[in-house]
Amino acid sequence: MALVDLPLEQLWRYRPDREEPADFDAFWNRTLAEAREFPLDPVLRRQDGPLTLVDAFEVEFTGFGGHRIGGWFLRPSNRPEPLPCVVRYLGYTVGRGRPHQWLSLPACGLATLVMDTRGQSDTADPAGGSGAEVPGFLTRGLTCPETYYYRRVYVDAVRAVEAAGSLPGVDPARIAVAAGSQGAGVGLAVAGLASARLRAVLLDVPSLTMFRRATEIGAAGSRAELVAYLKANRGREDDVFATLSYFDGVNFAARARVPAWFSAALMDPVCPPSTVFAAYHHYAGDKHMRVWPYNGHEGGGGDQEAEHLELLASLLGDER
Amino acid sequence: MALVDLPLEQLWRYRPDREEPADFDAFWNRTLAEAREFPLDPVLRRQDGPLTLVDAFEVEFTGFGGHRIGGWFLRPSNRPEPLPCVVRYLGYTVGRGRPHQWLSLPACGLATLVMDTRGQSDTADPAGGSGAEVPGFLTRGLTCPETYYYRRVYVDAVRAVEAAGSLPGVDPARIAVAAGSQGAGVGLAVAGLASARLRAVLLDVPSLTMFRRATEIGAAGSRAELVAYLKANRGREDDVFATLSYFDGVNFAARARVPAWFSAALMDPVCPPSTVFAAYHHYAGDKHMRVWPYNGHEGGGGDQEAEHLELLASLLGDER
Amino acid sequence: MALVDLPLEQLWRYRPDREEPADFDAFWNRTLAEAREFPLDPVLRRQDGPLTLVDAFEVEFTGFGGHRIGGWFLRPSNRPEPLPCVVRYLGYTVGRGRPHQWLSLPACGLATLVMDTRGQSDTADPAGGSGAEVPGFLTRGLTCPETYYYRRVYVDAVRAVEAAGSLPGVDPARIAVAAGSQGAGVGLAVAGLASARLRAVLLDVPSLTMFRRATEIGAAGSRAELVAYLKANRGREDDVFATLSYFDGVNFAARARVPAWFSAALMDPVCPPSTVFAAYHHYAGDKHMRVWPYNGHEGGGGDQEAEHLELLASLLGDER
Amino acid sequence: MALVDLPLEQLWRYRPDREEPADFDAFWNRTLAEAREFPLDPVLRRQDGPLTLVDAFEVEFTGFGGHRIGGWFLRPSNRPEPLPCVVRYLGYTVGRGRPHQWLSLPACGLATLVMDTRGQSDTADPAGGSGAEVPGFLTRGLTCPETYYYRRVYVDAVRAVEAAGSLPGVDPARIAVAAGSQGAGVGLAVAGLASARLRAVLLDVPSLTMFRRATEIGAAGSRAELVAYLKANRGREDDVFATLSYFDGVNFAARARVPAWFSAALMDPVCPPSTVFAAYHHYAGDKHMRVWPYNGHEGGGGDQEAEHLELLASLLGDER
Amino acid sequence: MALVDLPLEQLWRYRPDREEPADFDAFWNRTLAEAREFPLDPVLRRQDGPLTLVDAFEVEFTGFGGHRIGGWFLRPSNRPEPLPCVVRYLGYTVGRGRPHQWLSLPACGLATLVMDTRGQSDTADPAGGSGAEVPGFLTRGLTCPETYYYRRVYVDAVRAVEAAGSLPGVDPARIAVAAGSQGAGVGLAVAGLASARLRAVLLDVPSLTMFRRATEIGAAGSRAELVAYLKANRGREDDVFATLSYFDGVNFAARARVPAWFSAALMDPVCPPSTVFAAYHHYAGDKHMRVWPYNGHEGGGGDQEAEHLELLASLLGDER
Amino acid sequence: MALVDLPLEQLWRYRPDREEPADFDAFWNRTLAEAREFPLDPVLRRQDGPLTLVDAFEVEFTGFGGHRIGGWFLRPSNRPEPLPCVVRYLGYTVGRGRPHQWLSLPACGLATLVMDTRGQSDTADPAGGSGAEVPGFLTRGLTCPETYYYRRVYVDAVRAVEAAGSLPGVDPARIAVAAGSQGAGVGLAVAGLASARLRAVLLDVPSLTMFRRATEIGAAGSRAELVAYLKANRGREDDVFATLSYFDGVNFAARARVPAWFSAALMDPVCPPSTVFAAYHHYAGDKHMRVWPYNGHEGGGGDQEAEHLELLASLLGDER
Repeated sequence: MALVDLPLEQLWRYRPDREEPADFDAFWNRTLAEAREFPLDPVLRRQDGPLTLVDAFEVEFTGFGGHRIGGWFLRPSNRPEPLPCVVRYLGYTVGRGRPHQWLSLPACGLATLVMDTRGQSDTADPAGGSGAEVPGFLTRGLTCPETYYYRRVYVDAVRAVEAAGSLPGVDPARIAVAAGSQGAGVGLAVAGLASARLRAVLLDVPSLTMFRRATEIGAAGSRAELVAYLKANRGREDDVFATLSYFDGVNFAARARVPAWFSAALMDPVCPPSTVFAAYHHYAGDKHMRVWPYNGHEGGGGDQEAEHLELLASLLGDER
Repeated sequence: MALVDLPLEQLWRYRPDREEPADFDAFWNRTLAEAREFPLDPVLRRQDGPLTLVDAFEVEFTGFGGHRIGGWFLRPSNRPEPLPCVVRYLGYTVGRGRPHQWLSLPACGLATLVMDTRGQSDTADPAGGSGAEVPGFLTRGLTCPETYYYRRVYVDAVRAVEAAGSLPGVDPARIAVAAGSQGAGVGLAVAGLASARLRAVLLDVPSLTMFRRATEIGAAGSRAELVAYLKANRGREDDVFATLSYFDGVNFAARARVPAWFSAALMDPVCPPSTVFAAYHHYAGDKHMRVWPYNGHEGGGGDQEAEHLELLASLLGDER
Repeated sequence: MALVDLPLEQLWRYRPDREEPADFDAFWNRTLAEAREFPLDPVLRRQDGPLTLVDAFEVEFTGFGGHRIGGWFLRPSNRPEPLPCVVRYLGYTVGRGRPHQWLSLPACGLATLVMDTRGQSDTADPAGGSGAEVPGFLTRGLTCPETYYYRRVYVDAVRAVEAAGSLPGVDPARIAVAAGSQGAGVGLAVAGLASARLRAVLLDVPSLTMFRRATEIGAAGSRAELVAYLKANRGREDDVFATLSYFDGVNFAARARVPAWFSAALMDPVCPPSTVFAAYHHYAGDKHMRVWPYNGHEGGGGDQEAEHLELLASLLGDER
Repeated sequence: MALVDLPLEQLWRYRPDREEPADFDAFWNRTLAEAREFPLDPVLRRQDGPLTLVDAFEVEFTGFGGHRIGGWFLRPSNRPEPLPCVVRYLGYTVGRGRPHQWLSLPACGLATLVMDTRGQSDTADPAGGSGAEVPGFLTRGLTCPETYYYRRVYVDAVRAVEAAGSLPGVDPARIAVAAGSQGAGVGLAVAGLASARLRAVLLDVPSLTMFRRATEIGAAGSRAELVAYLKANRGREDDVFATLSYFDGVNFAARARVPAWFSAALMDPVCPPSTVFAAYHHYAGDKHMRVWPYNGHEGGGGDQEAEHLELLASLLGDER
Repeated sequence: MALVDLPLEQLWRYRPDREEPADFDAFWNRTLAEAREFPLDPVLRRQDGPLTLVDAFEVEFTGFGGHRIGGWFLRPSNRPEPLPCVVRYLGYTVGRGRPHQWLSLPACGLATLVMDTRGQSDTADPAGGSGAEVPGFLTRGLTCPETYYYRRVYVDAVRAVEAAGSLPGVDPARIAVAAGSQGAGVGLAVAGLASARLRAVLLDVPSLTMFRRATEIGAAGSRAELVAYLKANRGREDDVFATLSYFDGVNFAARARVPAWFSAALMDPVCPPSTVFAAYHHYAGDKHMRVWPYNGHEGGGGDQEAEHLELLASLLGDER
Repeated sequence: MALVDLPLEQLWRYRPDREEPADFDAFWNRTLAEAREFPLDPVLRRQDGPLTLVDAFEVEFTGFGGHRIGGWFLRPSNRPEPLPCVVRYLGYTVGRGRPHQWLSLPACGLATLVMDTRGQSDTADPAGGSGAEVPGFLTRGLTCPETYYYRRVYVDAVRAVEAAGSLPGVDPARIAVAAGSQGAGVGLAVAGLASARLRAVLLDVPSLTMFRRATEIGAAGSRAELVAYLKANRGREDDVFATLSYFDGVNFAARARVPAWFSAALMDPVCPPSTVFAAYHHYAGDKHMRVWPYNGHEGGGGDQEAEHLELLASLLGDER
């Protein structure tokens, strides 16, 4: 393993121009307005099991296109008062797992809602494709912004924040987002689309930013699917990057207002640090950056999460 | 490279039991009947270009679910009489390419129809998923036979044969199928579902057979997606293989009546030869097997194709 | 990924002879007696932090050679009564991480003690080597049983069970072990050496069994170090396997009496299933086997842990 | 996959100095003069087979040293008039295949001659080595220009153009070259040695240029053999690159006059784009460059060939 | 690393049938007779340098086809009496190196002659190819036994033994061969062709035996070139193995009379042990086998050489 | 293979700042003083065997901490006068092998002492670890300079020079060091600590320099263990590099006075040339640099050794 991108001192200055379509805001306003025409209708189903300190529920709410989106909701047992809630989005092709895998936030006195990424976890993506695809989700519906897969995911994610705020025992004034990799890319979009509903976003090694650069420097992981697509479908570069400009985290960063905590790892081949720093430098709200010099895509791992638990307990915890 | 499967003498005797659902025929009869409620409606759009010996067209017809399926149609120029036609299905994630890449059959006096695999080439798969997926097409809609991706593809393929027979300048009594890998798996399904419409099927290193064995011996390529799915979704093995039993080439082989020419390669890690011989041994029509001892998934390559051109010219050629 | 070892039906019958030195019991009796001459002296240091449902402590006790061994101890907050305790041993070169990474047992009302593997986590191995080594811990002190690294680790592990039983708020009659990989190999040794102190052992994809076979079938992971050693130090095979016979899980299995739950994964190249089934078949206590057909060394992962939480809550839970 | 070489904007300016021996022209004049002392003696042998639109022949003519060089010659059937002819050279270790694999040009009304690369296809290289070699053809006879393998190949290639022009039914005033990789490197040499006999050269991802740089930036493919040779034969760097300077495409480029169409792929590890642009920038005739930003050594593939068919039909087609 | 071939107990019984052409002896008698028409004409050129205990010479003699073959000749200084001499053949693509790399035999009081493998070391192979080749030497001239590369090498090797016996200060009654890998395959041929001139052959992990099996079990190294050739040149299997039957070590083994010491390594992917044991079991002279259970193609390395030095000193040493 | 580091012209100018602790000299003075409190007590044990030109001994002397360190000692037979002696240190995880593998220096009339690297060869490292380690020796005792593994090795190495000078038949005024890779890193430390006892140091592709840079550019081999450690033990970077600053070859280089011959290989991923040139440029004595442009970590191999034999024979040889 070696440093995979620019040296750290250049990363602190790396603020590339953004490729932003003129109708970016109009596109997302229209998209969210359409989605909100469906009732959110959150439902909780209690999960039996051996957990005694925490109440665990399967949650379901309405995301993009009226599709029902599932996930987990956990909160400390015997805590009837409204609690803060942290919304979690998942890494690429990572399923929701089991409730006991999401105990760290409840153990700190916080509720948490874990959202399925449609198609990648137990929730289906009932929308079909719009053209040629290569294996993976990055090229599904890539022919135009309206049909692109992440349009649905980003809307689901905004709705998840709204759902979290409407659940019993959640204080809607104390919602935060904490996620990594794809999940952090989704969280960055939510920060750009719904800052007003959030108290903090914690974004570890976020993906879904700087698509063109990621393909040029050979980012591994999901963005390699874009290279495979462009290799097989020559001449569509302009169309592809035009579509992706509606989904690039740097454009959401420029609209976000909620305080953000980023992290980047200097040996991360999946989310090379320049693609993270680009989002950080364009981020319009208060912002912090944590650098892990000798880590790959695992970033700060459990050490990062320990810092985040401290931070979230402090930011969201009981204010009385 | 080494022999990747059973020794050749064992392959000649390898005839495993089939896993076949009781309602296999009912399922496919119902599926085809529903598909045929949509009008086939084949359309040809002539392609300009430098080809002078061959007329090239984009073709479009109605496949599963009323979805329009594209492809190429080529025939020798200045040959007004009805000609035989060879239908081609594509390898996994291989696009249709350009018309000049499909000249070998027309150069022998035969027409050819190349069918897009929906989602994998220029034709979209407008149907969405039904649950968790892993990157690739093998797990799309895998929760039940009705929603499985290859239900749509196999129907498209039967309809492609019907479309070929209805095109101007094609003799519907002289249709054959020739394909390799995924395409040959699709062709095997067509042989099981529509033998009466065909004069021959040429199936090189077919995929989409013996799914369970393929996962156990570690077949590379598309079937590795099944392993990835079962690894992430523990406990669904029975459901998955129950669904796949409706799509396994060995079950179609047992229903086929049209003469078939198979080939298998002894160093093929993608379609290991035992999965090909299993289909061959269960094949109910006249059958032939060509073994390539030192080849991988490329099988007989251009040498195989040269044999096939001779064979097709002889089988389908002018009978006057 | 493919099946990496014998087919499942053969695994159910795979009960190889054991290589067991005549003085196996004498060796371990002497070893444990020497270790117990040092006072156990368990110490707890409370960890500050955001966890509110669980009390977390750094624990330290005396292991082999009077060396102090560290780890974590967690228990539900505000539960003054004596609780069951589950002892955890770590996978190869895996550190103890942070307290919040060990919440699943406390969230079920159980205490847990996580033991550092000396040299591999924050606890040092102050004993030096006895001859040539190759990188890794498997060849440290391999020249004779007295100096072998795992003699120290196994003793630490027995002492950890004793320490757990002596901690405030722990019911010494309700101690279990749950671990995976190297940790499960260590746990199997503890089952052989200290069954009387345990109510159950849960051993996922255990390592440290069937050393010779593991080297012959090319087990990946820690046992590959043995191949590297024997490759570089020709002619020492007999000595090496004579030393290892004092540490092979199958010999501990034959002495264990506590009920055991094993798991094995059929695509696990690190702990190939035959090396697990061999221990299972020789296990002298009540025993259960869970097979994961499409998993590698991750085995049952979160699904396995969910089963274990149910099981431990039921086996150890409040009996009043 | 990532960009493997200089960024595109630097490639447009990358015009390195050439290493050219003083007697470059004398060497090649003498070489060609010697070769032409042998009669060209082209022979055609008609191939039976199923092709009806195209006449296929095995061709043979005299190349370097009086050695007979084989290949294919195809032309549209029933076209008695002199036709343009496109000469094809093959990629590294690629055989001539079968006639039906060369139909695209005849289908556009053009004849084509496909030349075997001696030793790599059905034609032997009867000349022996002159010193140490490493596996492959790049180091055969490398001790001096007179014995170097590519001296023979380049002469064969010039003679192939002469042979094409002398075949029945070919218009010698309308000859072009179209080739890729090694074949394009050979074609570039022919452009430098025999521009006057050609109407166009189409050179896709050409190899055999910028040998020193290729070894330093780690070009994969055939030029990696040079690294293996220099690694094993220390101290011969100067001699090796002195020999290779007689064979470097950039030196032929500087002598070429026929219009050229180059292509380069920005993710091509075999023929990194800087080694292609160097030849382009030194090319002395009219020149065009096609860049494929997301492709490896496959370059433009079928899309490139489609453009070339249009171009060749237009450049060489019927002028009446 | 794992055992790569049959288990050891099966290897001790593995004696496959040989494929031997009827005119095997006639072919080699004729071949050697032709070679001996050229005068052997050995020449020594003293090498200056810092070695004071050993005299080093470049040696040259006439091998196949009158070609001059080079190598090293070393003997202890100041030892005027005739000494035994050990002839060494080189591993695949390994050059002769420097004189100081061949000191172990002279340091034991023995002379040694190291023969270049033509084309692979400083000696050229002036014979050309006879058809298609793939990179490497295994397919050079493979079209018939007369032109096959190893015909020339084996003849060179027999002549090297003759040359050694004729050098000043060598006792022709005390010649042995010691070599590994390709060199041991060559040495086995020499044992079959010239046993009467030898006192012992020491053959470590010999290559060039059991060509067909080697290709089927995927032997790495030089024999993988045969798979590459057969993959590209379909249908030539019978011809290829017919040619190779004149060069297979098992056929030479059946003719050898000189005592032989073989070694095999159970984890050797290049010369899998079954291909070595096959030769051992067919060997017609006194024979010994040394098995290295945990080694790859390095076999016994320096430990093997230490045994060989003892053995050679004892077998060949001063008998007075 | 490609150039792996800076271009050669930059390497000639690459002289980075050193990170040197203020008490570097005090640390080493104290360390050596402590070591010298133990008597050196060199012992020779003659090895029987077939070598007749050379006398071979097992040597043992007292290194760090009173630990006995083993190795080989060889000198030409029948040369009673005091001879020069070359001390050799071993590459990473390379054992001492057999005496016959160390003949080149005695064959030139020089004695040689080969020192075991403790733990890596037949000599044990009886000191234990001080904290977490990852497999390998680079992180053993890394928590502070006093406990770091290479403190012991460097002391052993200085003592080896002292031992060599005290052996019978060695001229203590004519001692040199010649080593490669780890051994050359050790030799560089010895040059910094004991220049007065040496006539020359020959350091091929030395390791153990520029630790931080090596981890950042992804040096393969032993220094990759540092990356693994820092990845698993986040936040310890400053401590780790502070400890390593006492062991960095560049700091020893700045103190060395004995003439040095360095070599570097431009394609060496294990000891990238910038880490070698940094030591060269800081070297305070007479110095020479040999560059191998097309080699990896093997560097100049036998060619380098041939140069070294000439050089050593000339520098150390008989001066009468």
